[in-house]
Amino acid sequence: MNEPLRELIEFLKIPSVSAKEEHKPDIQKAADWLVERLRRAGFSAEAVPTAGHPIVYAEKIVGEERPTVLVYGHYDVQPAEPLELWKTPPFEPTIRDGKLYARGASDDKGQVFAHVAAVSQLGGELPVNVKFVIEGEEEVGSSNLVPFVEANRERLAADAVLVSDSPMFAPGLPTLTYGLRGLTYMEARLRGLGRDVHSGAYGGAVPNAAHAAAWMISQLKDPMGWVRIPGFYDDVEPISPAEREMWSKLPFDEAEYAAEVGARSTAGEPGYGILERRWARPTFDVNGIGSGYQGEGSKTVIAAEAFFKFSMRLVPNQDPGKIADLTEAYLRKIVPEGYELEVLRYHGGQPVLVPTDSSPMQAAAAALSRAWGRETVFTREGGSIPIVYDFMRVLGAPVVLMGFGLESDNLHAPNEKIDLINFEKGIEASKNFFRLLPQYVGKGK
Amino acid sequence: MNEPLRELIEFLKIPSVSAKEEHKPDIQKAADWLVERLRRAGFSAEAVPTAGHPIVYAEKIVGEERPTVLVYGHYDVQPAEPLELWKTPPFEPTIRDGKLYARGASDDKGQVFAHVAAVSQLGGELPVNVKFVIEGEEEVGSSNLVPFVEANRERLAADAVLVSDSPMFAPGLPTLTYGLRGLTYMEARLRGLGRDVHSGAYGGAVPNAAHAAAWMISQLKDPMGWVRIPGFYDDVEPISPAEREMWSKLPFDEAEYAAEVGARSTAGEPGYGILERRWARPTFDVNGIGSGYQGEGSKTVIAAEAFFKFSMRLVPNQDPGKIADLTEAYLRKIVPEGYELEVLRYHGGQPVLVPTDSSPMQAAAAALSRAWGRETVFTREGGSIPIVYDFMRVLGAPVVLMGFGLESDNLHAPNEKIDLINFEKGIEASKNFFRLLPQYVGKGK
Repeated sequence: MNEPLRELIEFLKIPSVSAKEEHKPDIQKAADWLVERLRRAGFSAEAVPTAGHPIVYAEKIVGEERPTVLVYGHYDVQPAEPLELWKTPPFEPTIRDGKLYARGASDDKGQVFAHVAAVSQLGGELPVNVKFVIEGEEEVGSSNLVPFVEANRERLAADAVLVSDSPMFAPGLPTLTYGLRGLTYMEARLRGLGRDVHSGAYGGAVPNAAHAAAWMISQLKDPMGWVRIPGFYDDVEPISPAEREMWSKLPFDEAEYAAEVGARSTAGEPGYGILERRWARPTFDVNGIGSGYQGEGSKTVIAAEAFFKFSMRLVPNQDPGKIADLTEAYLRKIVPEGYELEVLRYHGGQPVLVPTDSSPMQAAAAALSRAWGRETVFTREGGSIPIVYDFMRVLGAPVVLMGFGLESDNLHAPNEKIDLINFEKGIEASKNFFRLLPQYVGKGK
Repeated sequence: MNEPLRELIEFLKIPSVSAKEEHKPDIQKAADWLVERLRRAGFSAEAVPTAGHPIVYAEKIVGEERPTVLVYGHYDVQPAEPLELWKTPPFEPTIRDGKLYARGASDDKGQVFAHVAAVSQLGGELPVNVKFVIEGEEEVGSSNLVPFVEANRERLAADAVLVSDSPMFAPGLPTLTYGLRGLTYMEARLRGLGRDVHSGAYGGAVPNAAHAAAWMISQLKDPMGWVRIPGFYDDVEPISPAEREMWSKLPFDEAEYAAEVGARSTAGEPGYGILERRWARPTFDVNGIGSGYQGEGSKTVIAAEAFFKFSMRLVPNQDPGKIADLTEAYLRKIVPEGYELEVLRYHGGQPVLVPTDSSPMQAAAAALSRAWGRETVFTREGGSIPIVYDFMRVLGAPVVLMGFGLESDNLHAPNEKIDLINFEKGIEASKNFFRLLPQYVGKGK
């Protein structure tokens, strides 16, 4: 086993689940591990305390005149539940068929660590200044990162921000992502009764919160995939003919895509292709619903309460705050009579589109092409990396989204993995990028 | 504390939850406790093993020429969850303000034990033959009781079947129930994906089982309370003008009723009063729904699966099997494309209407009136006691539904209780019934 892989496995063994209080010591352990590793690579590094989990900051300045790259990633991971669906335990990294299985393998430990390994291998030959910002709260909304970036605007100044927390379009196909969807995550809680009641004695005469929840969801998105919140589509930027053209050339097989997630068929808005639906159309999805009896068998109860958690993926120029307002107003309008409605707002994020013709993007395309021996493709992404918007806004630097993962990596799901070849090529691409960047930005040698 | 109350508390301390495998020893303990108690009252008694939980059978024959009463009840109880909502632990019976709080206090240990206490107090002066059938599977569908009754038709022969597992119409108002709703309990399970996926990467392009479940529920019952399953209402017997008239005289305050369950307003079919909706109209209620993330905060997931458990309360002449067939056919028709649907059928029960002018019913009315000092009212009940139908069918004896509980007893919910006065009056009414029955049925002295 080579050294970077051995180290990645060590990193993945730390169950740094940011959503759970019980894993707070593991979060600290993961941060300390990174600090130690970056110091060994010749970086000055520290775990900066925040109101939440620490941010690992590290830098190695090789020359004032050299271009500077800020690498962003996160060391926290999603909860591993449901545990019973993992073939091998989530925090006991296991190699099977050229893939490394573990929570965080692809999202994001494996991807961010490729850059750590790259700077380590370059050692004294690192031709650019490199700064690392690796946070521990990406999976819970990054609430302490933006204040950190804003407070350290000059310290973080860079010519390019390099982010590896996204997928390649297909195995073996080097990919740069130039668009991300935004996000608004909310929850509706309904109460129809002061207490749970017997469904026989009361059924037919009292409100049933599960029905109200179901009915509201049916009013939020129609079966064809059209979101019914008034004003939801008002600010949506249409897809340009050039993008449609570019995407149509990507190797994409809808049947294969459906098969990969075990779906009988794909779903979504008529009139748009799958890539368009995922990359350039907003959507609404329930992420969790619960009411009444959850156990095995039957219980004759009418529950007092119901909840549904939901999120909307947004595209340029939708605004998460405005969408949350529209949604809350609509929820309050459609809630059936007789129910108390509470609306919660969780994290959100701005959609992002970055120019593909910036020097760092072009350098990145060349770096990736060299590593994989194929021409780099430009794609958008359905997911959200809210901090990308903030890096652009605060630092004013172009962001390069250089992903080493795959859609099939089971992100946020059981049996998350990274292909070993992608981890290896990722390290190579990272080194290429650091080597090529000076030529493209016209600084340095 | 008087002896029957002390003994009831002992009985309630046994956590005889029939739905949970872990409580199997407690089920046996409750059965044994009853056997021992009935033997002390001069009965021959045994816990008869079945394929499931044992049935306690006991009898005391005072004379071939005397009328025979078969008392039915159940010693099993509902699960106590959610435990955190109980003010005092469910299996540590506690008296507060003249009420005894414990799981099973009203459903059904407190009610069935009133009869055990009554025959015990009558001792050698018991003027009728009494048989007890007390089962341990009422809360999980009574699947072994009907075979037992059928196999013991002659041993169980009786002039009346006395059942106390229902509520009084109002505190202090003696009540005989002459109608029960039937039941069909089912579950729908939906699968849209082979695995859970990230809601960002996939949202808008793949099926979401939570939406399919919500949409199907919205198609099963409209917001006005009308069940949309084709044929659902076909066999419903209309409410007679005489019943409407009788019910309209009952002391009932809709606002008070809503307040008692903490509802802002009542719900249900337009054109029917609350009592009519609960007693003589069929209904459909979701008893549990679940999909995706159930924990605190947010998780950006699209779940592969969703389920909803639901039950239909049926009225004369609806048939549970036919309704289940109609429902399954409708579910298979409305399930959106792209989802795998599994339909489960749990327990069911026939609706029941018994004549109010039988001798046992008239004797029971007199017995109750004497105990409470008020005229007995005749009501129906929204709940189901499926075995009542089978007793009538197999034994051919009239069934007397003499309830000592209240709607507000929190059946199947946290903080179940029985009013001590109802337990005491229940013992008195039971003794009155045994004393009066011979005169009414024209047998014996």
